[in-house]
Amino acid sequence: MPGNSRAAGTHHSRPSSSEEPPDLEVTSIAEVLCLTAFFGRLVHFAKVTPQKVFWKDTKNICVMVTIVLTLIDLVIYGSLEAVNIRGVRWSRALRPVFLINFPESRQIRRTFRSIRNTLPDILYVFLLFLFSMMIFSLMALKLFGDRDLRTVEGSPYFTNILDIAFELYVLVTTANSPDVMMPAYELNWWYSLYFITYIIINTYIFMSVFLAVIYNNYRKHLKNEIHTLAYLKHHKMTEAFNILKVKVGTEFVVKEARWRRLVKVVAPDVSSSHLELLLRISDEGQKGHVDKVNFLRLADLLNIRVVAINIKKHPLETWMPRVYQSSTSLLVQKMVQHRIFVWVYDVIILINAIFIALDEKDSLISYAEWLFLSLYIIEILLKLYTYEPSAYFGRKQFWNWFDTLIIIAALLATVANTTIQARKYNSQQVLDIVLILRILRLLRVIVSIQRFRVIVTTLINIGPTMLTFGGLVLVVYYAFAIIGMEVFHGKIHFLDPGSGSPDALVCGNPALKDSAFAQGRYCKNNFNDLASSLILLTELTVVNQWHILADGFALVTHQAAKLYFIGFHVVVVILIVNIFIAFILEAFFVAYSLEKSEVETAIEKKIQELGVGVQEEEVQNGGLIDNMDAKDSGFSADEGDNKKKDLKGLYFRIASKKYKTVDTLLQQMFESEIAPEGKDPSLKEILSFSPKKVNFDNSA
Amino acid sequence: MPGNSRAAGTHHSRPSSSEEPPDLEVTSIAEVLCLTAFFGRLVHFAKVTPQKVFWKDTKNICVMVTIVLTLIDLVIYGSLEAVNIRGVRWSRALRPVFLINFPESRQIRRTFRSIRNTLPDILYVFLLFLFSMMIFSLMALKLFGDRDLRTVEGSPYFTNILDIAFELYVLVTTANSPDVMMPAYELNWWYSLYFITYIIINTYIFMSVFLAVIYNNYRKHLKNEIHTLAYLKHHKMTEAFNILKVKVGTEFVVKEARWRRLVKVVAPDVSSSHLELLLRISDEGQKGHVDKVNFLRLADLLNIRVVAINIKKHPLETWMPRVYQSSTSLLVQKMVQHRIFVWVYDVIILINAIFIALDEKDSLISYAEWLFLSLYIIEILLKLYTYEPSAYFGRKQFWNWFDTLIIIAALLATVANTTIQARKYNSQQVLDIVLILRILRLLRVIVSIQRFRVIVTTLINIGPTMLTFGGLVLVVYYAFAIIGMEVFHGKIHFLDPGSGSPDALVCGNPALKDSAFAQGRYCKNNFNDLASSLILLTELTVVNQWHILADGFALVTHQAAKLYFIGFHVVVVILIVNIFIAFILEAFFVAYSLEKSEVETAIEKKIQELGVGVQEEEVQNGGLIDNMDAKDSGFSADEGDNKKKDLKGLYFRIASKKYKTVDTLLQQMFESEIAPEGKDPSLKEILSFSPKKVNFDNSA
Repeated sequence: MPGNSRAAGTHHSRPSSSEEPPDLEVTSIAEVLCLTAFFGRLVHFAKVTPQKVFWKDTKNICVMVTIVLTLIDLVIYGSLEAVNIRGVRWSRALRPVFLINFPESRQIRRTFRSIRNTLPDILYVFLLFLFSMMIFSLMALKLFGDRDLRTVEGSPYFTNILDIAFELYVLVTTANSPDVMMPAYELNWWYSLYFITYIIINTYIFMSVFLAVIYNNYRKHLKNEIHTLAYLKHHKMTEAFNILKVKVGTEFVVKEARWRRLVKVVAPDVSSSHLELLLRISDEGQKGHVDKVNFLRLADLLNIRVVAINIKKHPLETWMPRVYQSSTSLLVQKMVQHRIFVWVYDVIILINAIFIALDEKDSLISYAEWLFLSLYIIEILLKLYTYEPSAYFGRKQFWNWFDTLIIIAALLATVANTTIQARKYNSQQVLDIVLILRILRLLRVIVSIQRFRVIVTTLINIGPTMLTFGGLVLVVYYAFAIIGMEVFHGKIHFLDPGSGSPDALVCGNPALKDSAFAQGRYCKNNFNDLASSLILLTELTVVNQWHILADGFALVTHQAAKLYFIGFHVVVVILIVNIFIAFILEAFFVAYSLEKSEVETAIEKKIQELGVGVQEEEVQNGGLIDNMDAKDSGFSADEGDNKKKDLKGLYFRIASKKYKTVDTLLQQMFESEIAPEGKDPSLKEILSFSPKKVNFDNSA
Repeated sequence: MPGNSRAAGTHHSRPSSSEEPPDLEVTSIAEVLCLTAFFGRLVHFAKVTPQKVFWKDTKNICVMVTIVLTLIDLVIYGSLEAVNIRGVRWSRALRPVFLINFPESRQIRRTFRSIRNTLPDILYVFLLFLFSMMIFSLMALKLFGDRDLRTVEGSPYFTNILDIAFELYVLVTTANSPDVMMPAYELNWWYSLYFITYIIINTYIFMSVFLAVIYNNYRKHLKNEIHTLAYLKHHKMTEAFNILKVKVGTEFVVKEARWRRLVKVVAPDVSSSHLELLLRISDEGQKGHVDKVNFLRLADLLNIRVVAINIKKHPLETWMPRVYQSSTSLLVQKMVQHRIFVWVYDVIILINAIFIALDEKDSLISYAEWLFLSLYIIEILLKLYTYEPSAYFGRKQFWNWFDTLIIIAALLATVANTTIQARKYNSQQVLDIVLILRILRLLRVIVSIQRFRVIVTTLINIGPTMLTFGGLVLVVYYAFAIIGMEVFHGKIHFLDPGSGSPDALVCGNPALKDSAFAQGRYCKNNFNDLASSLILLTELTVVNQWHILADGFALVTHQAAKLYFIGFHVVVVILIVNIFIAFILEAFFVAYSLEKSEVETAIEKKIQELGVGVQEEEVQNGGLIDNMDAKDSGFSADEGDNKKKDLKGLYFRIASKKYKTVDTLLQQMFESEIAPEGKDPSLKEILSFSPKKVNFDNSA
């Protein structure tokens, strides 16, 4: 969901800025249309929300103010343009506000809130850091200023306090190490100690402290939010219980029929067998009603994705049982299921890698490509013959999907490429895609190495949440790109060096003569359109050589332009990248320590109790082999257990390693850490299975 | 302790390598003497330790093997030298073994163990990372190899798979961004997506995963070690209790007299008033004996440094009470204690900073220096007049010490400088020191800003533990420096560029002609002596431009030399720097969350109960002002409370923010996290104050 809205958001803001100079009328109409759409959305939202709630919500106010400001800006710009004065379209920097305030971008808003709360703490560390930089700048001025030293480029070394401060800021980012030290070091090796001390204090210690402060605040803030969420959930569930309850004996309960209807309403896509399972878990004693404690954890139960595995016969077995069960066919199936089959294909992939690395001008090698493609296709067909296709392409079988898609794409691209070449028309784009797909096939090796698969699966699981950071970064990048385009647009041009024009060597701007910017052939790094700006900002995020880029833009405008680049470094590298690292650390700790939550364990226990479970390990370890073995061993045969009768033929498994939503992951992150004390009953207590300890009527 | 041994360790290993070529006889004799000393130490150690323990201890075996290997190496080298063959003194790389295996370097050994345990996990991530690099290298070869592109230097771009792999490894460290991307980006901006994808996956995600894996393992490992320590402590204390116990009524206890004798034996330097305090805490009911629970926490009680504050009269008040208590004198004291006094001096420091920044050729400004110096000295004298000197220079008054020492040093250096200059002899060294001291005085501003002081205090508190990393880094640096000196010694020379010799431009080695190494004037970065090697390794740790250094040394030897630099990056930057970051993160979290341990809180409660406490906040917030105010308000007068009679006139305060040893800090880090379950009684249980819950006789 957030992904969709994000894509849409950037899509209709991009055209107006990437094709410069845009036709004013067209872009204005597009912009007014977008604003109307946002306004319509807001009006709709206002209708379905109570007045009080609507006006208290900051995000609605934000969107409204932004719409008004954008309209004002449009009118001013339009009228200025009418009298031929070029105005500044400042409201473009506000556009990310729409993106953030979509109801779906909850994660981005949460991260922004987290950043806002971190700011006061960060500020003091930052001030202390600036103070330390100031002290070191003064020292450098006194120690080196009068020595008449020269840098490699021949300019005076450490003579101006502002230049020194900038150089030392750059040294914090390590971008000018060791060049900045060399002139002093050549004079006397003792002076290197000054730089080493500076690096230890400002680069290592202060930057780690920034990470520590951000990480600490990030955790604290998230924990608070999740705690509030947990409390709200409990509160709402208690309200629901109070509406639905009836008295049975001494306690209030919800009757089974009513409970069923409720689940059908709130989760219409739950299968009836899944509902049966949930009922078994909620009504353990099979008394025909659900008590309060079990009712309260309904939301958590529904949040856990239980995969119903239908162990079906292979379609071929149904169509032509005799052929499929023949000894040759069984031999093929055994072969495919064997470890050696995997190894053989690993070796094939390895040989393929060597062939790719070799020069493919040789026709023998380009024929080999067809051979490899067909080998891979045979592999997939063999697997489909052996394993039940709908299980092979099950929801959780990421690697099977990956395999098949990569091979099919490679096949299509190769065919397309050959047909194009046969018509003597050479398309570089298609060839590039063919090459990339051919190499991506090598990734299949990861599947056969267990430890690799675990790492990659963890990374894929935290992928959706990483996209939140994608959104966050996009918002900040967009705002900086707009500012950059207003300030630096057209100052630096990329001219084809092949043209021989002397301007090409100075990026079309004589101010860059002899600068490191022009010498490094950085002309393409400019703010002339949105794509270039975003790529340039990415380079600044990577930090290296950013001082050369900053110097270049300062030369073509004013020295103060460096502040833009320093500001970008502080916001993106010190704040956002550290939050990203904090998130990855946290997510990895969760992945390492919390395998399953308490509720999941309970469901799993129940599944096993009912004898309808498939061990996750079995499925994971050998693809679907063990699962299929189980099929043969009569595992599904009726063992006369009456508990099983409703669920016969169906097997359940918890898809615990795939988090349904980002929220679930975060909740799981902090669930175990929320202190059970405090006046609010914590999630842990709510989820605890023995109803005797907690008395909810007091707290509700 | 570790600091001393470390200094000694490097001291006697340095002479033999820093002055090349050393006189063989002298260095050999020194080395044999050192070996004898180490051997003697080992023999002594063997005598005082039981045989079994001695031979099971890995560190003794290590030291023994190293001594033997060093002797063998010495003999081989000596005999080769005798027949004029230059051998390799390979055993020098083993020297850090002595440093690590000092009994005092427990922290370094622990960190090494932690690294060793992390290796298997890291290895798989590293292999996956290499695999991903390989895939990207292949892609780069296919996408860019046939395009006939050229780098800025004019060399072919991405044509050789090994070169590509090296370039991409460098890109992971960000050292060649964005240069490596520019030729492809100039061709088509779509190709920048390849590099951005690469950076996101390999630089951001993989490097974060490395940090996560290392951090996770570091915590897990430390927690285990601390848990074991806690268990051992409990076990030993229980054994001691069983020896000393007598039965009183229904329970076993230790009599007061016996308890006193025990404390006197194990901690002879505990003052009698401190002992009294501990007894009050351990024997809460004043029943004349200490029960088991209270006995078991004796070790923790002794670990907490309680500062006995003797609120004494100012010596001047004793000598000449009438003058000191006169209205003028009291006015001065009030003035000094006032906030404005602090502010006035902050302004003076600010003006001083401006004066320092100005050119000091002007004689007016150099006179101003004397004015500032005298103002600072007056400040210290005034403070000493107002506050009791022994309290002002108390153990915990770091900032007062800092202030006074900086001013005295600045005074001495300035006087020395003036006398030297009066004799027409200009010493750059002395002048440099004067300048640095003058600027360091500005640091005093930190004291007057509360938030700054907190951050700096935290940093100072984790300082001793950071020194552990200093030791660790030194060990690794030393080993790499020795290897580097063997391989690259004399290949690159720094020749004074002023000499005009053409060799100076290529660092004395024609192989470096036109290389980025020579163009960057990096000649001073060589392995010709230990100091240069260590500085070069520091530059490699900072990472920037390391590929140019690596290229330079590869040009003068062989391309395989790059492996040395890649190895250094993996070991130091990926492993050790990440452990350093993990440590800083952990230490900061402790500093933020755990203000005081449970035992400390108990002691503090008792101190307050007995009415002999001084609130730490009082002392911290306004220097010693509130403390001194308390003196005036008759706080120490006998209020007739009989509890106080033994401790009259003495005030206690817990020096909680200064950790006594690194172990204590680490213990405090994980104390609260050790799970109270499990078969071992955890520290938390041992420390819990209500004796009813835990039944130790079962577990002991």
